[in-house]
Amino acid sequence: MTSPQRAPGGFPVVGVIGGGQLARMCAGPAAELSITLSVLSEAPDAAAAQVVPHSPVGDHTDVDDVLDFARHCDVVTFDHEHVPPAVLEALVSSGVALHPTPEALRFAQDKLAMRERLTTIGVACPRWARARTAAEVEDFAEQVGWPVVAKTPRGGYDGKGVRVIGSAAEVADWLDQVGAPGALHDGVLLEEKVDFVRELAVLIARSPSNQAAAWPVVETVQTDGICTEVLAPAPGLDPDLAAVATEAGLRIAEELGVTGVFAVEMFEVRDPGSGAAAYVVNELAMRPHNSGHWSMDGAVTGQFEQHLRAVLDLPLGAPTPRAPWTVMANVLGGDYPDLYPAYRHIMARDPALKVHLYGKAVRPGRKIGHVTVSGTDLDDLRERARHAADYLAGVITE
Amino acid sequence: MTSPQRAPGGFPVVGVIGGGQLARMCAGPAAELSITLSVLSEAPDAAAAQVVPHSPVGDHTDVDDVLDFARHCDVVTFDHEHVPPAVLEALVSSGVALHPTPEALRFAQDKLAMRERLTTIGVACPRWARARTAAEVEDFAEQVGWPVVAKTPRGGYDGKGVRVIGSAAEVADWLDQVGAPGALHDGVLLEEKVDFVRELAVLIARSPSNQAAAWPVVETVQTDGICTEVLAPAPGLDPDLAAVATEAGLRIAEELGVTGVFAVEMFEVRDPGSGAAAYVVNELAMRPHNSGHWSMDGAVTGQFEQHLRAVLDLPLGAPTPRAPWTVMANVLGGDYPDLYPAYRHIMARDPALKVHLYGKAVRPGRKIGHVTVSGTDLDDLRERARHAADYLAGVITE
Repeated sequence: MTSPQRAPGGFPVVGVIGGGQLARMCAGPAAELSITLSVLSEAPDAAAAQVVPHSPVGDHTDVDDVLDFARHCDVVTFDHEHVPPAVLEALVSSGVALHPTPEALRFAQDKLAMRERLTTIGVACPRWARARTAAEVEDFAEQVGWPVVAKTPRGGYDGKGVRVIGSAAEVADWLDQVGAPGALHDGVLLEEKVDFVRELAVLIARSPSNQAAAWPVVETVQTDGICTEVLAPAPGLDPDLAAVATEAGLRIAEELGVTGVFAVEMFEVRDPGSGAAAYVVNELAMRPHNSGHWSMDGAVTGQFEQHLRAVLDLPLGAPTPRAPWTVMANVLGGDYPDLYPAYRHIMARDPALKVHLYGKAVRPGRKIGHVTVSGTDLDDLRERARHAADYLAGVITE
Repeated sequence: MTSPQRAPGGFPVVGVIGGGQLARMCAGPAAELSITLSVLSEAPDAAAAQVVPHSPVGDHTDVDDVLDFARHCDVVTFDHEHVPPAVLEALVSSGVALHPTPEALRFAQDKLAMRERLTTIGVACPRWARARTAAEVEDFAEQVGWPVVAKTPRGGYDGKGVRVIGSAAEVADWLDQVGAPGALHDGVLLEEKVDFVRELAVLIARSPSNQAAAWPVVETVQTDGICTEVLAPAPGLDPDLAAVATEAGLRIAEELGVTGVFAVEMFEVRDPGSGAAAYVVNELAMRPHNSGHWSMDGAVTGQFEQHLRAVLDLPLGAPTPRAPWTVMANVLGGDYPDLYPAYRHIMARDPALKVHLYGKAVRPGRKIGHVTVSGTDLDDLRERARHAADYLAGVITE
């Protein structure tokens, strides 16, 4: 494997395992900061490989590929959370600086481990249990009521690996794997179905020196289990809840030893007794996250620049918003493979729109880009972001 | 020459001749917009070649190199104005879409042609003349008074090719070239030494369809002939002058047929009779320009994104400022080759500072980067930008 070209002046090389859009969106900030990126890509035409000169192709599950890649990097970080624990351990053993570390990543890779740890440190979670048998599923449902949310502890994303079930039979296939040789999980995670007001996300950056910075709490809007819209900051959020939720995010980051940018997805709930606003944690993501894309345009320091600063243990940038409101809408693939004419149209319609596309071929439902727009009138911003995303997806033709 | 990798979805390839920092700073916006960049670079480690995957090395004065390069591009634009007219004509003859066009570029490459054209279209200029002999220099000085500003019509930048003279003898070497075989110029440009209040710059983008957008007029501060600081917008600028100067910029763009981003450097003067604020044009630059770097962080659409949109004839983005004030300070190379420790320091001191470095080796006086900072208190912003730039240059150690 060739070495990446390092910038003169003592600047470092950051390796990113995985060539998806998160690695791609590091490219602009890395160039500005004179940090060299190196990306271990799935394919020569991966989203990040299109824009990063040093993007060797390799298998992130293959120890030799990953070690060979890491040799040329001062620090290694991740585009996704799918690097197997054995590969992570091999990297650490050979002296590679990994951020986040395997100890922290475990809690993003294994949702049962995450629930156990969060409960220990006193962070609010939905009621939950580990079920290894149908009887244990029935027992849990008796406590919290049907339906129950069942999750595979590993491998889920964008709604995959999650089922809302009305009987134990609906997760029979997952339960069958428990105790099987080479099984991915030792039990299914069960959670009460939370009666939430809306979904929130807390985005935090933390460096190895324990400096931390938090962006404002945002509202995330999901459609069919996929995030489609983010409102920054979360409109009308109770300031006490904003403080408590941010404090929970910072506590998780410190207690779990997270480094880099990380996201805590939360449900906003009402206390059944007092009616006060409260949170329960839904998921953790230990990497830049879709709920933080708004910050690229909407904050003084965007999440991709901040992630680079954090994993390099550089001083963190200000997460201050640049405008009262920023709205982000994801662009999902539609039926039209040629985006360029639609993109001309939305640029003409809205000169203040910021368009981000990931260089990915259109497939229905695939996240292929996002748009953001910032300003003072939230309803207007939502309409504009929604229109642009829908137009790019081909949902509307005017 | 290999072909660049094109993003799926019908997206174009923009070729940039020259691998300096202006080409480099197009990389982030190009990735966001899914536009593929291809850069004809001076060397494999040129500023842009470090961050753009397709950066073939070639000579911008060699017709074959440039034609071979242009073959893979949908449109070709420039990092600098040094491509010889014969090479430009060869590109046009072979059907390459060039922006700006050779007809427009001529006025940025030849300052005598620029003065003739601007005078014809009624744009305010200093009093000027073409001198081919010492006697003609003396004649002009008799009209405007010594000292006189003398310029070589071609090849000047950052103060090079400009002399403030007190006698014709001081440009004897330039006059000797007039009429010589293969001479670069047919006469020296003479201009009155303008008694200016300050320097301003108007930054415009214009597309082949004649859509145009103007950023606010900025003040530029020069030290030893090199721009060191930009204040956006120009503080206390008379609104009438702002309108007149912007209108002049737009008129020049249209009359000269400029496409892409272009800058008009101006002097702010006082009318000797009325005392009213007025402008005279100093120089033109037909490319993104140092006076527009503030817009990367300080405007909704930065100049590099806008340049890509303009040369592709895409709808232009909003040039609206994101904050009341943005200050940009250039980072000039100092005595310390290792920038990384200084850069950690300035990040720690000012988390809201935006740092841009160009991947260039430090040489004393060389532009190696810039910093910007946005906010509401101009004096505070100037102090912060100045401190960071000086610290990076090694001028101060606290």
